[in-house]
Amino acid sequence: MYGNISIEKASQRKTMPDLAQNLGFGRHFTDHMFIMDYTEGRGWHDPRIVPYGPISHDPAAMIFHYGQAVFEGMKAFRTVSGEIALFRPEQNAKRLQRSSERLSIPTIDEAFVVEAIRTLVSLDKIWVPAKKGSSLYIRPFVIATEAMLGVRPSAQYSFIVIMSPVDAYYEEGLHPVNILVESYYARAVLGGTGNAKVAGNYAGSLKAQTLAKEHDCAQVLWLDAIEKKYLEEVGSMNVFFKIGGEVVTPSLSGSILDGITRSSIIHLLRNWGIPVTERKVSIDEIVQAHADGTLEEAYGTGTAAVVSPIGSLLWNGNRMEINGGQTGELVERLYLEITGIQEGTRPDQFGWLTYCE
Amino acid sequence: MYGNISIEKASQRKTMPDLAQNLGFGRHFTDHMFIMDYTEGRGWHDPRIVPYGPISHDPAAMIFHYGQAVFEGMKAFRTVSGEIALFRPEQNAKRLQRSSERLSIPTIDEAFVVEAIRTLVSLDKIWVPAKKGSSLYIRPFVIATEAMLGVRPSAQYSFIVIMSPVDAYYEEGLHPVNILVESYYARAVLGGTGNAKVAGNYAGSLKAQTLAKEHDCAQVLWLDAIEKKYLEEVGSMNVFFKIGGEVVTPSLSGSILDGITRSSIIHLLRNWGIPVTERKVSIDEIVQAHADGTLEEAYGTGTAAVVSPIGSLLWNGNRMEINGGQTGELVERLYLEITGIQEGTRPDQFGWLTYCE
Ligand SMILES: Cc1ncc(COP(=O)(O)O)c(C=O)c1O
Ligand SMILES: Cc1ncc(COP(=O)(O)O)c(C=O)c1O
Repeated sequence: MYGNISIEKASQRKTMPDLAQNLGFGRHFTDHMFIMDYTEGRGWHDPRIVPYGPISHDPAAMIFHYGQAVFEGMKAFRTVSGEIALFRPEQNAKRLQRSSERLSIPTIDEAFVVEAIRTLVSLDKIWVPAKKGSSLYIRPFVIATEAMLGVRPSAQYSFIVIMSPVDAYYEEGLHPVNILVESYYARAVLGGTGNAKVAGNYAGSLKAQTLAKEHDCAQVLWLDAIEKKYLEEVGSMNVFFKIGGEVVTPSLSGSILDGITRSSIIHLLRNWGIPVTERKVSIDEIVQAHADGTLEEAYGTGTAAVVSPIGSLLWNGNRMEINGGQTGELVERLYLEITGIQEGTRPDQFGWLTYCE
Repeated sequence: MYGNISIEKASQRKTMPDLAQNLGFGRHFTDHMFIMDYTEGRGWHDPRIVPYGPISHDPAAMIFHYGQAVFEGMKAFRTVSGEIALFRPEQNAKRLQRSSERLSIPTIDEAFVVEAIRTLVSLDKIWVPAKKGSSLYIRPFVIATEAMLGVRPSAQYSFIVIMSPVDAYYEEGLHPVNILVESYYARAVLGGTGNAKVAGNYAGSLKAQTLAKEHDCAQVLWLDAIEKKYLEEVGSMNVFFKIGGEVVTPSLSGSILDGITRSSIIHLLRNWGIPVTERKVSIDEIVQAHADGTLEEAYGTGTAAVVSPIGSLLWNGNRMEINGGQTGELVERLYLEITGIQEGTRPDQFGWLTYCE
């Protein structure tokens, strides 16, 4: 489609960290990376795998000035039978297209993105850790590279994929975390870039995240920027609540990310016959449900953590404990099901896995 | 403060473009650039001027993923007496600090920033064009450079200054442009990053800008993201209206940039005894003023263009012509005054110029 993927192998492999030990998140990178360039008039070209190493740009390259950059986050797993599987990679490829659209970045064929990733993972497969809960985190990203200071879409881009063996994101594992409901800072607004996975969304969220830490909270739960009333999402996760036996999650309002874990969870819940509704969820409703004792569980969902139970919400100076600060039954069941599918101990009944090699 | 600025001169100067000819904007760069690094625990260090050239980063450097980047835009002018002057550089240095704060980037001493720029401009002074309206555009920026994929403030940064000889930004000069009032896309929202000069704000605006071009408009005039009612700013400019003899400009609501040209213009108008008010300005008010014939002038203000008269506003499919599509008297007077101060043909009565060397 964009030409064959050429492969230049590293002359020697890196010294690998012990994949069964503390890998952390996004600290170690594999031997190779994928790169493909875009030039106006010529389109995407020169797909290649090269040794992992520094990339060089003119200091006027637009990425350094105007934030024209989108990315994805996905994982490869070593299943119990030793195969290597990607989890719903076509969904990431689709979202990369949608994010690119939003930032006026030329899109890349979805099937090609998956193929590029499969090729790279296969080449660096010894980096896929086998330890339970660990995985190879895959970071595809596109950056604007034209060296020009005017504010307009870049005429040149690079699409790059790097990979990092990782432990579970939340070092505490499935331990509930405290979350701060943020009332001043906003992550996104309707008409903005909140429903795309674009670089600038994350920079803007750091300040609130620091405030959360100061309040002994792991993350921020964002409210909608317009009415400061409806829940949006948590840090890099979508959010779910179980209230009076029913599961609810904020609908895709236009300012939250369409999480792939979120969609998988909705699918599983429906499949299990557990009622789940996507709709506006107000903070007042959560406060009320907490007061009535009908707020049974709350959790975030995302590729990095899979699910992350919420032990308490801090809102307006009040800490609302959820499920006695314990991991709930449903979130645990979801965790076991999804990680089970990923590690190959439960049947992949929805065809969510794509194998490498 | 951060150590002496070391200077490594380019072994040979670049072939310069003809500074009296079409320079465009942000296409040519001078012989040198300034760099200083930040490392957590050590602070800002190693300020240096080096030959202009590519910068190299790990592909996991945070700038490529999370948009943690702020910048400034300012100009050096060759005055009629041959001296080289910066226009209110301490204001840019202050705003760089405020922008950095918003993105959890460690700030840099204001006086040091000005000194670094003066040193760089002095070294590359042959690049400051002399042609009327042209100048040396200066782009200080800070980028997150730590190679780590977690979403948190980077532990490493680079502060870089590059410079580009430029013509007037709008090739048409003081010719009025058409502007599209944008009703769907949002640039910023209260609690977001709109009042900081951060990379991500610009990427998010490209899509609307493309729409504007399709409607034969040069730029977008943003409405507030909450009520879609109040005017914010235009592309990379603040906006002013003259209505029934009075000048109004949107107040610094928290989601618009505190433009240095804006502040200079307010200062000049007050000095001239022309009433000017910073307040909420609704699109309905503009439509009404246009209908009653009291909308006398409209213009954008910013470093790149100084002022840019608005010939018409396109709103809800209706094109409202302003001042018969001609450059107004007041905007022309402001343009002559500011460019006069910058080129040294009018007295610098407010001490806005800082000389280099
Ligand atoms: C802002 C945001 N929300 C939600 C998610 C969850 O999406 P996914 O389940 O696709 O990982 C992510 C990312 O990973 C995110 O960055
Ligand atoms: C969004 C935005 N608004 C307004 C301005 C005008 O600011 P200044 O007059 O300081 O150049 C700029 C930048 O230059 C800008 O980027």
